[in-house]
Amino acid sequence: MGLKKLVKLAAMLAAFVTLEGQMQMSAAKDAADLIVMGRYVVTMDAKGTVIENGAVAIKDGAILAVGPEDDIAAAYDAPETVPAEGRVLMPGFVNGHTHSAMVLFRGMADDLDLMTWLTKYIFPMEGRYVDPDFIRVGSTLACWEMIQGGTTSFVDMYFYPDVIAGVVEQCGLRAVISAPMIDYPSPGFKGWDDSFASGVDFVKRWQGKNGRITPALAPHAPYTVSKEHLAAVAKVAHELHAPISIHIAEDKAELKTIGDKYGITSVDLMQDTGLLDEQVIAAHVVWPTEGDMKKLAGTRVGAIHNPTSNMKTGAGIAPIPAMLKAGVTIGLGTDGAASNNDLDMWEEVRLAALLHKGVATDPTVMPAATALDLGTRMGAKAAGLEGVTGALEPGLRADMIQVSLDSLRLKPLYDVVSHLVYAANSRDVVTSIVDGKLLMKDGKVLTIDEAKLRADIEAVADKIRADLKATAQ
Amino acid sequence: MGLKKLVKLAAMLAAFVTLEGQMQMSAAKDAADLIVMGRYVVTMDAKGTVIENGAVAIKDGAILAVGPEDDIAAAYDAPETVPAEGRVLMPGFVNGHTHSAMVLFRGMADDLDLMTWLTKYIFPMEGRYVDPDFIRVGSTLACWEMIQGGTTSFVDMYFYPDVIAGVVEQCGLRAVISAPMIDYPSPGFKGWDDSFASGVDFVKRWQGKNGRITPALAPHAPYTVSKEHLAAVAKVAHELHAPISIHIAEDKAELKTIGDKYGITSVDLMQDTGLLDEQVIAAHVVWPTEGDMKKLAGTRVGAIHNPTSNMKTGAGIAPIPAMLKAGVTIGLGTDGAASNNDLDMWEEVRLAALLHKGVATDPTVMPAATALDLGTRMGAKAAGLEGVTGALEPGLRADMIQVSLDSLRLKPLYDVVSHLVYAANSRDVVTSIVDGKLLMKDGKVLTIDEAKLRADIEAVADKIRADLKATAQ
Repeated sequence: MGLKKLVKLAAMLAAFVTLEGQMQMSAAKDAADLIVMGRYVVTMDAKGTVIENGAVAIKDGAILAVGPEDDIAAAYDAPETVPAEGRVLMPGFVNGHTHSAMVLFRGMADDLDLMTWLTKYIFPMEGRYVDPDFIRVGSTLACWEMIQGGTTSFVDMYFYPDVIAGVVEQCGLRAVISAPMIDYPSPGFKGWDDSFASGVDFVKRWQGKNGRITPALAPHAPYTVSKEHLAAVAKVAHELHAPISIHIAEDKAELKTIGDKYGITSVDLMQDTGLLDEQVIAAHVVWPTEGDMKKLAGTRVGAIHNPTSNMKTGAGIAPIPAMLKAGVTIGLGTDGAASNNDLDMWEEVRLAALLHKGVATDPTVMPAATALDLGTRMGAKAAGLEGVTGALEPGLRADMIQVSLDSLRLKPLYDVVSHLVYAANSRDVVTSIVDGKLLMKDGKVLTIDEAKLRADIEAVADKIRADLKATAQ
Repeated sequence: MGLKKLVKLAAMLAAFVTLEGQMQMSAAKDAADLIVMGRYVVTMDAKGTVIENGAVAIKDGAILAVGPEDDIAAAYDAPETVPAEGRVLMPGFVNGHTHSAMVLFRGMADDLDLMTWLTKYIFPMEGRYVDPDFIRVGSTLACWEMIQGGTTSFVDMYFYPDVIAGVVEQCGLRAVISAPMIDYPSPGFKGWDDSFASGVDFVKRWQGKNGRITPALAPHAPYTVSKEHLAAVAKVAHELHAPISIHIAEDKAELKTIGDKYGITSVDLMQDTGLLDEQVIAAHVVWPTEGDMKKLAGTRVGAIHNPTSNMKTGAGIAPIPAMLKAGVTIGLGTDGAASNNDLDMWEEVRLAALLHKGVATDPTVMPAATALDLGTRMGAKAAGLEGVTGALEPGLRADMIQVSLDSLRLKPLYDVVSHLVYAANSRDVVTSIVDGKLLMKDGKVLTIDEAKLRADIEAVADKIRADLKATAQ
């Protein structure tokens, strides 16, 4: 064999090895179900990593990998791809506290003192209209609004939780659904005994049934549920490994009521009843003392900041920077639409970023990235969903949204996180994915029949409008 | 003549008379240029009248009549009609304070202490990039954003006011354009003398030139313009009947500076220099004393509340309910996009409605209708545009917007004013009319070439982005 032939053979061998290698590389691509791309992938991981021209590979509803789009394309094959189209890809928001079906009371009564609002409007209207059909229609509207606005998980506390769970099963969102328990009569119940028993049954019925639905217990508040009953909830929640959703330290009136009754704070009462040892989603926490903050730090209690609702009802302004400094886990929520009047987490994130700077007269107390964290990663932890959702990281469930940067209102762009917090709004969300499944594509919600929903809303609202006219007279 | 014939004749006569009457009615219809309809016409008149199925007739850029659509149709003929399509018709917003071209610095730097923000980013970037082309591009983007978001009038304070006026002439908005004057070097000027002279020339050049453009004088602030110079501005403004735009009592640092220098407040200084006797658009007024409020009441000074900016920069929270109670005229503004980061008056109205309830822990201190008034009717008065715009009333200029109620986020509807303040957002605006001329139809801005604007923005932003990278290193 001459030298030339040898060289030729070597070249052929090298080509074969390279080809083989490429074939092996190709054969070695892992199978994914879906690849989603983003011009900017805002991962909300612990380091706040933002990847330009990135992608996420998804399989069986979970995130397989997050990285530059070229790396993801080289490593994964998927039958479906959602292209970047210049959009942001980020985790969906976690709405840590709402009463979803109350969207049907949106704008029914505003700007009234709390007792007039509750006793003249909310309680009578709930008494007259809240039934399983109201909950079905209201929760469906709420889910439409949350999908459309980029929320992928929510913590709900409202009547007929089985109906809410049915709506959530169908629309595809992730939810912690908590069954209300209260010492007084409420829709469907005479008082504590039956609401408590029903709530415990609800949790047992739904645990393990649907990976997207976490059933929970919801003792309403320290001023509507006795100390003994709170302790009973803590005990059964511990046995069932179920989260608890509750209103805590919402306004000054509660401070006074609990102080007068027990001589302690609502957080002290959580400690005395065993609640501080459980996974608790504590809505509001507007008036914690320094001692309360220390007690909450390091526990599994998440404090849910509802800035719009707390201002609208005149509850006050929670000391969020101090709570974060003390080590309290904070999430964000919209509360029910009757005190908001929408379920728009963009507004809550923006307000969380703005409000505390104004109160402190210090623009450094709440950076944009921190506010966004409260709505996503830390918000997931506050809702008991740490390790499940709230970020784009391998192993987490595939809950994410695409946000269009196309509006001139978002031009020019220097810092994508700044734009998400201070300039974007809910209408910029175009894609929603939960558990790896597309719930919204190009701004159209895929899992809810919008025409039917519109008709259903008006059927309920017609009755309420007639009633309001009579109330006004 | 038999009875039958008589009856027939009488019937014919009656028919003729009726026909004649109809023809006269028809002939008697007044000519209008445009009729605009609304499912709800939120007039923002002094009584807060809301007309269901209403309309506005427009001629020569002014409002001829406002009323039920049937009455308007019976009384006016117009070659063009904008149908209701279920929408709200209302006056456009008056953005009482902005630095429009700063949209090109949107999100460039956030959440920094004031001096770092100003000295490391804003001042150097202004020094390097603010020239007539920057102003043309930035003001055009700002006008696009304001038209798209339902603002029909704005008060601007930024460099190269002739360029701004040129943009406003073309895009069709109404504006008070104020020429900046400052004791220090600024883009285009060495200091006070040339900036003052140039501002006075600008006012003389533009007075009476375009009915939509009011030229004004803008001494920057009490801490950047000497007492003598403020007095000189008051004097020339009085002579020219020109409004003055200025920053007043924005933060605690200003209180201290003015207190140390003069031993009085910034409002006292306005009094001593003659400013309190003029038409002044006073931005911020975050820290007025009770004495200041009394002095401002009954004057032609409008205090412009900029809730987003005041929170974002850590300036504080203006005591708006107390100021209203004292009789101070209040408007709303976005401030420049560098401290907002958009020019969205819906957010300012919503914040004005929410914020003061939270601070006062009282949900009754700022009803939704009052917040909307600050953004429209009273906002117009604060901007020196009373009797010109801010409401839908005969005689005012025809500045109005249509707001779609179609989104499910606005369902159900019980109270349209509540929805405008607490649930709608800028993306719901679909029609904009200023001086009787359509600036936006079905969500598309008609007076600005969007493709060219996009290219122009990126050309400026590319330079700034490269500079920011260098600054960060």
